[in-house]
Amino acid sequence: MIETPYLLFLGEAPDGLAAKVAQGIRDWRPENAVGQFRMEGCKADMKLPDMTLAEAKAAGAKTLVIGVANRGGVISQAWKRVLIEALEEGFDLASGLHNLLRDEEDLVAVAKSCGRTLHDVRVPSVKYPIANGEKRTGKRCLAVGTDCSVGKMYTAMAMDAEMRERGLKSTFRATGQTGILITGDGVPLDAVIADFMAGSIEWLTPDNDDDHWDMIEGQGSLFHVSYSGVTLALVHGGQPDALILCHEPTREHMRGLPGYKLPSLQTLRDTALPLARVGNPACEVVGVSVNTQHMGEDEAKAYLAKVEAEMGLPATDPYRFGSAKLVDALVALG
Amino acid sequence: MIETPYLLFLGEAPDGLAAKVAQGIRDWRPENAVGQFRMEGCKADMKLPDMTLAEAKAAGAKTLVIGVANRGGVISQAWKRVLIEALEEGFDLASGLHNLLRDEEDLVAVAKSCGRTLHDVRVPSVKYPIANGEKRTGKRCLAVGTDCSVGKMYTAMAMDAEMRERGLKSTFRATGQTGILITGDGVPLDAVIADFMAGSIEWLTPDNDDDHWDMIEGQGSLFHVSYSGVTLALVHGGQPDALILCHEPTREHMRGLPGYKLPSLQTLRDTALPLARVGNPACEVVGVSVNTQHMGEDEAKAYLAKVEAEMGLPATDPYRFGSAKLVDALVALG
Repeated sequence: MIETPYLLFLGEAPDGLAAKVAQGIRDWRPENAVGQFRMEGCKADMKLPDMTLAEAKAAGAKTLVIGVANRGGVISQAWKRVLIEALEEGFDLASGLHNLLRDEEDLVAVAKSCGRTLHDVRVPSVKYPIANGEKRTGKRCLAVGTDCSVGKMYTAMAMDAEMRERGLKSTFRATGQTGILITGDGVPLDAVIADFMAGSIEWLTPDNDDDHWDMIEGQGSLFHVSYSGVTLALVHGGQPDALILCHEPTREHMRGLPGYKLPSLQTLRDTALPLARVGNPACEVVGVSVNTQHMGEDEAKAYLAKVEAEMGLPATDPYRFGSAKLVDALVALG
Repeated sequence: MIETPYLLFLGEAPDGLAAKVAQGIRDWRPENAVGQFRMEGCKADMKLPDMTLAEAKAAGAKTLVIGVANRGGVISQAWKRVLIEALEEGFDLASGLHNLLRDEEDLVAVAKSCGRTLHDVRVPSVKYPIANGEKRTGKRCLAVGTDCSVGKMYTAMAMDAEMRERGLKSTFRATGQTGILITGDGVPLDAVIADFMAGSIEWLTPDNDDDHWDMIEGQGSLFHVSYSGVTLALVHGGQPDALILCHEPTREHMRGLPGYKLPSLQTLRDTALPLARVGNPACEVVGVSVNTQHMGEDEAKAYLAKVEAEMGLPATDPYRFGSAKLVDALVALG
């Protein structure tokens, strides 16, 4: 568990895209960020107050979160100076970088002498159990995709926000680095040992109130041969009551796999639902989330109408048109 | 890669079952074992020459393989004395125990001073790639089960032996501890990091002659919620041309999951085949392997006949009736 609120470190991010993690925190948990720390040349702007470390500390920030990807996979000396000063000022550090904070000897030494914690959210910090498959109380929703990176996290985040806005009980459950940094907690599923994958998701989504929904962040795709095993562990460990099908209609092949076509939404439904029912016989597909970012507005609306007619399910682009339809369908399920 | 041949260490095994690893080596790779080493009170017997360490060394043995499970999960002082002497005599050690050899300081120290290697086959020793899904040359067969522990390893071992007896090109590809110790090589799939599971199987079954078959050891089951992700990684990383369906008809529930019934062979076929075709559109189900150990001979034969009629596929118990039918079907595939 990462202590909030955060100061968002943007480094010299050349654009907003490089600061994806910071943007996610800004979009979904603005109450978790007291300000941003930008270095000379930074072109990203989260529209948060620019703060020095001391100002952020005075404003209550507990953790400096690295909200930007680093180029070349190396933590630079310029970054180091800020990170070390932050530790000395009393901040914990949190990072989803491939290069781990804990592999940097100087950071480890300063953190130790200052009594601060280095959070590398790519690495599991928990000894997860093997899944036992026992039915848990409360309800769970999982987004499954025709491909990787089609908007599963965004869909779950948007539905969680809509649920809470309506006064319904909902918790976003992060299964990837960005989601963990946004919410401060979760399971870095792609870094979990094979035997414990499903168990880590059972651990993440324990017994809860009967009317509480876990909105579980999806990973990979049952149709992506590199990562499909991770996805099936989510489907079985998550025990979902509801599935949301996610799709990006303009993609010409599976992400990173030029020889592989995307399945249809029908094929995704007919594959994912029977598998989900192994773990939860009551599971239903409740809606479709389409990433229409590469379509014009009319084209997007026409596509969504076509999907609704063909699938007999509500369909929306939660980023463009909101997630209300999907939440309506979830609520209607019980 | 573990150096062969082996001396099989049986400790004080109370019965043959406790020496499952040694029995597997004896059954499937007798040429890998020059003899057995038994301690006082050992009730297991591999029908191999009993040898002292010096005798085994003289007979050419390179590695002492722990062929027995240890009680209580502790490597005893009595075992230690033998293991240390073995290192001093020039043996490497190989183990699939949960307690790792490398966690025993005295073994590590002696191995280092003698220049010997400790093989803990439960722990990956390779940095596996992420799967790229590219089509590989050569052919691959994978056994998939309605449940865990229904005979998938035995089936692949038996088919591999039959193939080689017929002069056909075949390699058993181990994906679990026992299989790795038997053959000296493989991937401990259940201990691989999630993101690299499918890639480890691509690595294990690389390009090969067009008429060469990899007989890939199966793991888990698509229907076992604790381990299904591991199985799907095998189905997609293995790119099988042929699937063998494995079943144990008398089992009342999924192994370790009292609330879960086994699927039918039809359901297994209809689930596994479309998933396998994502990675290899040419994949076919070629036969059924039934573990009939809890059935009388007449009952077993009647059951196999019923399966053949219902599934339209050859069915056998490879342990009881041989694997010729399955190999015939594989050969007929091309």
